[in-house]
Amino acid sequence: MSSWYKSWILLTGFILFYVAYLLFGAFVFSTIERPVEDKLKRDIQVLKEEFLNQSCVNATSLENFLERVLQANKYGVSILPNSSASSNWDLASSLFFANTLVTTVGYGHTTPLSDTGKAFSIFYALLGVPFTMLVLTACVQRLMHLVTYGPISMFRQKIGLDPLAATAVHFAILLLVVVLGFFVVPAVVFSYIEDTWSFLDAIYFCFITLCTIGLGDYVPGEKPGQNFRSLYKISVMVYLFVGLMMMYLVLRAFHRMADLHGLTSFFQLPHCDEDIEEDREPIIEAGHEDQHEVEASAKPLDPASQTSYNTINR
Amino acid sequence: MSSWYKSWILLTGFILFYVAYLLFGAFVFSTIERPVEDKLKRDIQVLKEEFLNQSCVNATSLENFLERVLQANKYGVSILPNSSASSNWDLASSLFFANTLVTTVGYGHTTPLSDTGKAFSIFYALLGVPFTMLVLTACVQRLMHLVTYGPISMFRQKIGLDPLAATAVHFAILLLVVVLGFFVVPAVVFSYIEDTWSFLDAIYFCFITLCTIGLGDYVPGEKPGQNFRSLYKISVMVYLFVGLMMMYLVLRAFHRMADLHGLTSFFQLPHCDEDIEEDREPIIEAGHEDQHEVEASAKPLDPASQTSYNTINR
Repeated sequence: MSSWYKSWILLTGFILFYVAYLLFGAFVFSTIERPVEDKLKRDIQVLKEEFLNQSCVNATSLENFLERVLQANKYGVSILPNSSASSNWDLASSLFFANTLVTTVGYGHTTPLSDTGKAFSIFYALLGVPFTMLVLTACVQRLMHLVTYGPISMFRQKIGLDPLAATAVHFAILLLVVVLGFFVVPAVVFSYIEDTWSFLDAIYFCFITLCTIGLGDYVPGEKPGQNFRSLYKISVMVYLFVGLMMMYLVLRAFHRMADLHGLTSFFQLPHCDEDIEEDREPIIEAGHEDQHEVEASAKPLDPASQTSYNTINR
Repeated sequence: MSSWYKSWILLTGFILFYVAYLLFGAFVFSTIERPVEDKLKRDIQVLKEEFLNQSCVNATSLENFLERVLQANKYGVSILPNSSASSNWDLASSLFFANTLVTTVGYGHTTPLSDTGKAFSIFYALLGVPFTMLVLTACVQRLMHLVTYGPISMFRQKIGLDPLAATAVHFAILLLVVVLGFFVVPAVVFSYIEDTWSFLDAIYFCFITLCTIGLGDYVPGEKPGQNFRSLYKISVMVYLFVGLMMMYLVLRAFHRMADLHGLTSFFQLPHCDEDIEEDREPIIEAGHEDQHEVEASAKPLDPASQTSYNTINR
């Protein structure tokens, strides 16, 4: 009982510290990069005025002008008037940047301009990336009982499926739920909010994001005059975190199924370990719903029964 | 003996199939995106000529012009004359794009322009990302004996260190080797080859790449008139693959050390499993150097002794 509480208090502590770490990063990035961005914005406006005031525009002067415009654009500073109102380094945007850094998504639609910002990015990610993996692993580990062990055990007891069939049916259902809940539905929402995104664009964004590829050709909340921009950015961060958790769960379920079907042995790869043992053990009929809770509370105490995630799950 | 061969033939098969998969991706991306890129390039040149030919340049016409320039630039098509010679979708660049997609680095300095390209990216990454993880896991698993078990066993036998100290010393040495060999030395090389990169820029690039963040503000081989561009791009791909492998090895060694020092138990996280058991077993004195090779050949046969990588290792 007390270990169950300890486990959840530890997880809550992890999540709170994670949020604090993101806020700290956002504050530092904003402090470092905001003045550099403001200067670049002023420079680019002066450049534009000078260009407009010159008597004749020739190819060379245009190219020199465009070179500097594109350079500024690379750092997320646009010369266009409607995009100069919002900053890339206000608190919400910095928080979003910090989040894409530690989750290794890295859209790169805004990047640090200053050497201090680059150096801080290195140190921030050096601690932040493993820490994010720690928090995600801790969350997934505690969700496994609810999302994987519970349903599989139920399929076997209630419907009488054998372990192989139960794991396959569970995987199929989980995949369907994740595809609908974390790809299709968010894509509908994104294509509704973002005027210029088609449904394919939105699905492409969801996929590129949740695989942590993060190409950055589509980034939510970047259109000029976006309503509730800060709230929108934070919602996308929550979507990203929960979505990554679900991706782990799906890949873990896949790895587990591959194990049971002998694929990992065939490819001579690491096994999913003790889960399989658990599946091979006779199931004790449980008449009350608290069983999984009891299992969850007992598990973390026994190192041999701990859930193990393989890199192949990513 | 035959299982040792089987293990290495399987790995060679994996790597060859991986290279074939990358080449296939490069060929498809190049076929799909090259015509779209060519059209955009022609459009942007026409736009530039029209802009230069107009009698007076006012703020509105300049802004309309810049909006289209920045839009094209987002897709990697630059209006500047010196960058129009090379394509983002020739075979080497497409190969580089395919590689950054499946390793989840995703610089995003070039992104698919067409809907077909976006849809293909989704399907390509859907298979490619897990496949890359499979190949990396298979490589790391076979390297562990050489890079981790061997040296640790040596420290214990030859120097007489206890398991905790041997693991800590091994981790410190491995970390130093990786920092020097995969961050400092490549950064020196990159800052030498890329004229505009400082040493900090190059270290920042190595770090952002090997963490698979891939912001894309620094991408090698993108300067106009780059010598041996294709060869350079392919070398960066090899650096990326081997570098990712070394990152796995370091994080695996860290996780192993954390396990032995009781950190994973403290945080109630998954263990590194059987490696620890191995460390706790009495070591049999081996007089000949072939011992680790024998270990390597015996290991993959026994599922219980297989190496397991946790997500926290990423």
